[in-house]
Amino acid sequence: MLDTLITGGHLLTMAGPGVGFVEDGAVGIRGRTIVAVGPRREVEAHGPATTTLDGRDRLVMPGLIDAHLHSAAVLGRGWAQEVERWMDSAYGPMLRNVDPADAPLATLWALMEGVANGTTTFADYTRPMGELVRSHALMGSRSVVCDSISERNFANRERWIAQGWKPGDPTPLDAEAGKESLARSLRLHEEWDGHDEGRIRVIFGPHAADFLSREMLLRVQAEARQRGCRLHLHVAQDPRENNATQQRFGLRAIPYLESIGLLAPDLIAVHLSTATEAEVETVVKAGAGMVCCANSIGIIDGVMPPAALFKRLGGRVALGSDQAPGNNSHNIFSEMRATAMHPKIRAEHPLAIPSWQVLRSATIEGAEVLGVADRVGSLEVGKEADLILLDLTRPPLAPVLLRPARNLVANLVYAETGRNVELSMVAGKIIYRDGRFSNVDAEEIHGKVRAAAERLQRATAADDRTRDLPIVDLTRRGLA
Amino acid sequence: MLDTLITGGHLLTMAGPGVGFVEDGAVGIRGRTIVAVGPRREVEAHGPATTTLDGRDRLVMPGLIDAHLHSAAVLGRGWAQEVERWMDSAYGPMLRNVDPADAPLATLWALMEGVANGTTTFADYTRPMGELVRSHALMGSRSVVCDSISERNFANRERWIAQGWKPGDPTPLDAEAGKESLARSLRLHEEWDGHDEGRIRVIFGPHAADFLSREMLLRVQAEARQRGCRLHLHVAQDPRENNATQQRFGLRAIPYLESIGLLAPDLIAVHLSTATEAEVETVVKAGAGMVCCANSIGIIDGVMPPAALFKRLGGRVALGSDQAPGNNSHNIFSEMRATAMHPKIRAEHPLAIPSWQVLRSATIEGAEVLGVADRVGSLEVGKEADLILLDLTRPPLAPVLLRPARNLVANLVYAETGRNVELSMVAGKIIYRDGRFSNVDAEEIHGKVRAAAERLQRATAADDRTRDLPIVDLTRRGLA
Repeated sequence: MLDTLITGGHLLTMAGPGVGFVEDGAVGIRGRTIVAVGPRREVEAHGPATTTLDGRDRLVMPGLIDAHLHSAAVLGRGWAQEVERWMDSAYGPMLRNVDPADAPLATLWALMEGVANGTTTFADYTRPMGELVRSHALMGSRSVVCDSISERNFANRERWIAQGWKPGDPTPLDAEAGKESLARSLRLHEEWDGHDEGRIRVIFGPHAADFLSREMLLRVQAEARQRGCRLHLHVAQDPRENNATQQRFGLRAIPYLESIGLLAPDLIAVHLSTATEAEVETVVKAGAGMVCCANSIGIIDGVMPPAALFKRLGGRVALGSDQAPGNNSHNIFSEMRATAMHPKIRAEHPLAIPSWQVLRSATIEGAEVLGVADRVGSLEVGKEADLILLDLTRPPLAPVLLRPARNLVANLVYAETGRNVELSMVAGKIIYRDGRFSNVDAEEIHGKVRAAAERLQRATAADDRTRDLPIVDLTRRGLA
Repeated sequence: MLDTLITGGHLLTMAGPGVGFVEDGAVGIRGRTIVAVGPRREVEAHGPATTTLDGRDRLVMPGLIDAHLHSAAVLGRGWAQEVERWMDSAYGPMLRNVDPADAPLATLWALMEGVANGTTTFADYTRPMGELVRSHALMGSRSVVCDSISERNFANRERWIAQGWKPGDPTPLDAEAGKESLARSLRLHEEWDGHDEGRIRVIFGPHAADFLSREMLLRVQAEARQRGCRLHLHVAQDPRENNATQQRFGLRAIPYLESIGLLAPDLIAVHLSTATEAEVETVVKAGAGMVCCANSIGIIDGVMPPAALFKRLGGRVALGSDQAPGNNSHNIFSEMRATAMHPKIRAEHPLAIPSWQVLRSATIEGAEVLGVADRVGSLEVGKEADLILLDLTRPPLAPVLLRPARNLVANLVYAETGRNVELSMVAGKIIYRDGRFSNVDAEEIHGKVRAAAERLQRATAADDRTRDLPIVDLTRRGLA
């Protein structure tokens, strides 16, 4: 007896070394778990089922994995772009007026966007995570959250400036602030890790090599290892980071991290935007995973992170939507397209990275990088039922061609936008179907988001420090 | 008295040098024509209206312009990629078994995809156009169609090969075939140009500088000018073209075209993939327009056409979805994103091309390049009412921020996928609303597309010449 049987669809199981295509397949689910998957007749033999979902003309595949996002920034969507030095000339000043009380709402809005576009697992990196994890719990999606651990005390920024600090200089460190942020992460882990039979995982998020002292970085690593948790770290994100570690330790960020033993299989290394080829090789050899945020880094820096090289060297790459002020969406289909296209443009070669490799990044490799591949990332017996159904009767997925060449994977990666996602399931429960969320009312949430955006606009418009920003000027000139 | 009043929405009129934003605006329509546009109260003074559309929480903007597509190829969606030399190693052999009888259906399917994603004008370049124009007429969208005029007689390819011709060599020319194709274009023009008060325009499509003799190219230009029509020409698309004109005339394609007077304001120059900086400047100075197909050329060649440079030099750039076997969609939102992103990645600079310039390419510049800007491309009094409404209450367009910086244009270009297109109007008539087409039944058409795709698959699978193609091998290896 099955709880749910999804039958008659084409499957991309993502099991094995390729994409695991099954024509006319089925998935049988008991409780949270996949108990049968494969050709329809074999799976139907496990029946009957309490609920049967008709999978004909549908694609069934693992839910997508967003391996790096800053959910609460979604209120400032589109406010950090068309600039150089995006953090100092846009993101920082435009977003500083977000009311922390609106952050849980913003997180929910970001998750709703992701779920409506096929994402089932979110590695949310937001400071302070505190209440936001409740939004993850409410949504019903799977999460691997962390707070930011940092000795950078941004409250002192005006004082640094008075003392001669300029953007790009190494950030002064504040040991007390670091201890507080670690304590916050430990409490978060204590309270939330393992929630709902492990649907919520809490890991540790030291911010960047230059925002923590060597000792603190190693202490965070030790605390994480004691708890069997991964480290989620921005690595080689920008020249500032390399400059700082060079000044402090005589090494660029990646060699420095290697020298202290941070590069290891339990490291989730985000961005690698400034990594040299040799540095990429160092990270791969250490067994760390990479998260590539192709759209965000492309928009804010004009850079394509080295995802293609990382894969070529045998490393595992996950995809992340990063932050909406500069991206401007939390949509892993958009990330797949960018991750497939930008390396081609960079290398001026159509074979720079094939679509099937990118689809693996959005699913099984994403799960491996986050350390949750024992539970999700592919449709396999014993894994939890995190999956999505896509309508195959509409463009850009129709017509479906199977012989002599299949077009499903290419159309998913190069063209699908998330619009054809019809149903989304996490741990055996449907959390989204036909445009409706199971656990939240989209219209009600939008009303609250609109009100929060009004507050943000009033505060930001009244903030003199935004008056001469390039993005404000663009609006004044009628170009936005 | 108005026929239709759309009121209470935000407008991007695209009139003037920027994006023409109007907060709380309205559009008044009489017959096919916009008779009032601007702030709500001013426009409402022209009322009442027979039909009022509530524009609150909606964005109203000109319908998008797809300035170059090969509509009938959509049946082979996704079948020409992950390869080098895409035309010879994928598109040609995979698509040769399309039944010409299925082409009008395929065209309709491509138009439906475009319309559902906000496109209202299609510059369809398909050979033979013949019956396909009826699909355009049926759909209700605006069209600037052409047939291909060419002295390349592909039916003789096997004979060329026997005589030592290889892919990449100059194509032997066949004057008879050229005359026939010109005669076909003249008949098409005679029969269809001006249909439905000019909703359908027929122009002339000489295929490429190396597929016609000098004399024939000039004859086509003369015929087009006599009728006040533009020329729609692939220009500097690949090395083959430059090699051929070099061998025949001692010049690369663009200098050759310049030398015979083809580069002029009535030229629609598609691709320019291999153009040098100096050649781009030549085309801009001549006043010709460019069509950039960022996704297609990126996927098949790994190249970003020189759209950013063309604009920087003062030229006008339109966007095109090209062909679904290699793109894989007919969606101008996807083209906007790629056109905004790929130059950043190529230049490694976030300011390579700003979003507002790309939005102009998808609207008013697209209309200018096609020669239809007197009628469409912006919301202005006296132009025809070709417009779309987008839902602003959902990601990635929500939250809408207006002060101190607006985020609408950035979110449209960097993130919108077409999913939020709610209504589409051409010449004052609604052709798409809430997922339904006014003039065709999507489910019925999909049934026919599925049957046509079955026929294509059977024929292609039975064709020995496809057996060892890379894309077939990818499927065999479980990577598709």
